[in-house]
Amino acid sequence: MVLTKMKTDSNLNYLIDGIINGEKRAIARTITKIENETDDYIDLLDQLYSRIGKAHRIGVTGPPGAGKSTFTNQLTKLYRSLGLTVGVIAVDPSSPFTGGAILGDRIRMKEVCSDPGVFIRSMATRGSMGGLVRQATEVADVLDASGKDVIIYETVGVGQIELDIMSAADTIIVMTVPDAGDVIQGMKAGLMEIGDIFVINKADLAGADRMKADLEYVLHLQKFNNGWNNKVWLAESRIGRGIKDIFDNAKEHFEFLKKNKILRQKQNQRIEERVRHLVNNHINQEFWSDERLAELQKLLKNSKNQISPYSIAGRLIGK
Amino acid sequence: MVLTKMKTDSNLNYLIDGIINGEKRAIARTITKIENETDDYIDLLDQLYSRIGKAHRIGVTGPPGAGKSTFTNQLTKLYRSLGLTVGVIAVDPSSPFTGGAILGDRIRMKEVCSDPGVFIRSMATRGSMGGLVRQATEVADVLDASGKDVIIYETVGVGQIELDIMSAADTIIVMTVPDAGDVIQGMKAGLMEIGDIFVINKADLAGADRMKADLEYVLHLQKFNNGWNNKVWLAESRIGRGIKDIFDNAKEHFEFLKKNKILRQKQNQRIEERVRHLVNNHINQEFWSDERLAELQKLLKNSKNQISPYSIAGRLIGK
Repeated sequence: MVLTKMKTDSNLNYLIDGIINGEKRAIARTITKIENETDDYIDLLDQLYSRIGKAHRIGVTGPPGAGKSTFTNQLTKLYRSLGLTVGVIAVDPSSPFTGGAILGDRIRMKEVCSDPGVFIRSMATRGSMGGLVRQATEVADVLDASGKDVIIYETVGVGQIELDIMSAADTIIVMTVPDAGDVIQGMKAGLMEIGDIFVINKADLAGADRMKADLEYVLHLQKFNNGWNNKVWLAESRIGRGIKDIFDNAKEHFEFLKKNKILRQKQNQRIEERVRHLVNNHINQEFWSDERLAELQKLLKNSKNQISPYSIAGRLIGK
Repeated sequence: MVLTKMKTDSNLNYLIDGIINGEKRAIARTITKIENETDDYIDLLDQLYSRIGKAHRIGVTGPPGAGKSTFTNQLTKLYRSLGLTVGVIAVDPSSPFTGGAILGDRIRMKEVCSDPGVFIRSMATRGSMGGLVRQATEVADVLDASGKDVIIYETVGVGQIELDIMSAADTIIVMTVPDAGDVIQGMKAGLMEIGDIFVINKADLAGADRMKADLEYVLHLQKFNNGWNNKVWLAESRIGRGIKDIFDNAKEHFEFLKKNKILRQKQNQRIEERVRHLVNNHINQEFWSDERLAELQKLLKNSKNQISPYSIAGRLIGK
């Protein structure tokens, strides 16, 4: 990722026009460029930049089996029924090799797939994790620039990467199911701390009310989230129960963020991180010239475990 | 982490002597330095470097509830019964906020805790994930330098970080339990690909033999692991069943790695990664001087979402 080419050729202009018009083909082609880190993709994102910042970015996370896909499907349908357009980015970082079960889950979203007002993209890990988080954010930017009103990040699992991806969302919905064991245990891995809205899905199962009470109690003990009052909702995504309440609550949260200038703050933080990442990437690439790479190999070969990596690093940077 | 100070003061010499003598206090103090990234910790690791490379580094991974702690405990006892010393590094990356359940699991290891020939350290996430993997490797280096014959990395969960930590091991033991659902599903997330030895723990549960056959079949379909023949073992860690077989198989794998010069290759790869990391960290820190940080803030403040992060990055690097 080198920041050299900063003029846009006509081919890109064509793509940019397509994105702005919300054409699925143009969006898909751009996402492929992001995934492959083609020479021109930064140029493209740069050109789109002035058009982003309007979409409400919602994160949906929680343990496997919580029903996130079904919920996302229902939420998407509700937005669509109000004439709003939706982008869905489904990220499965748990499957670096096999591609991920989430692709199978997408079958459940077939209903909304053919809708021109909905764009769905599954992303699995290829290479580094940091890369996945960055790419998911860039895909969201493209969807934002294409005029989507709402962008939903959906992640499987509850690891660090999921938390990182969630940090790219304005509103975070944490989903769980009754009987997922001890409420605190089920909510570990930082989910309690990052959630803006909590959903107990499959609430027809035994223990839902008890879990809601427990969860509300624990949330009550926590510090308030910038003054935002976290709520816990019972839902049955399969039959649509609770979706409207959660929809309203998400909208309310977005208004809250805007009113209190927290949205701006979150966006600024994301920009700063992006700039730092771009700069670091660039200077690292500049440093690792062919000569330096050759020097590194020579030092490694000659060291035979006698020279420490610290000394080798010191030599490379000339200390 | 700056690579400037490269001479050792007398205080460090004292610590280094303690580590070489295998003193728990000295090891613990050094690990704290690693975790806190004190000014002198790189200096310390550099000084210890010539003493590492002898220990057999074993990774134990698998889904939560597979019985990894109990297994590690039994394996440790077996090594000890042969007069070998053991270091255990238990990493729980799934709990960035709360500290991690693995600390509770350590209670099960109380038996070996008081043994002077065993050093156990739990590590949870603080800050970045990449940092956790690096720290775990550095702690292993310290234990290696202290003369431990075997170092066991134990991780909870099956995410990318666990895979990264496992890449720091010479021999990877993948554990699972019968009835963990479909064998392929249970083994997803790259575990099939990274394992050198497979263990079906709690083999008294129904379905163990069937699972063993399934797993062997799938492993058979995979390409061979550098010519190493992956085996599947039934075990009941609680009562010690299977431990000796797995112990022998692990030893055999280590000999295999040495004989085929794969160990050297793995170690070289790790050194190269470490060097790259150190260099990149250094040049990034050099770049982000106080003036550049101030410039970044100024650009962010003035941009008001009008200038893209790509343009801001371009200005900072002078393009």
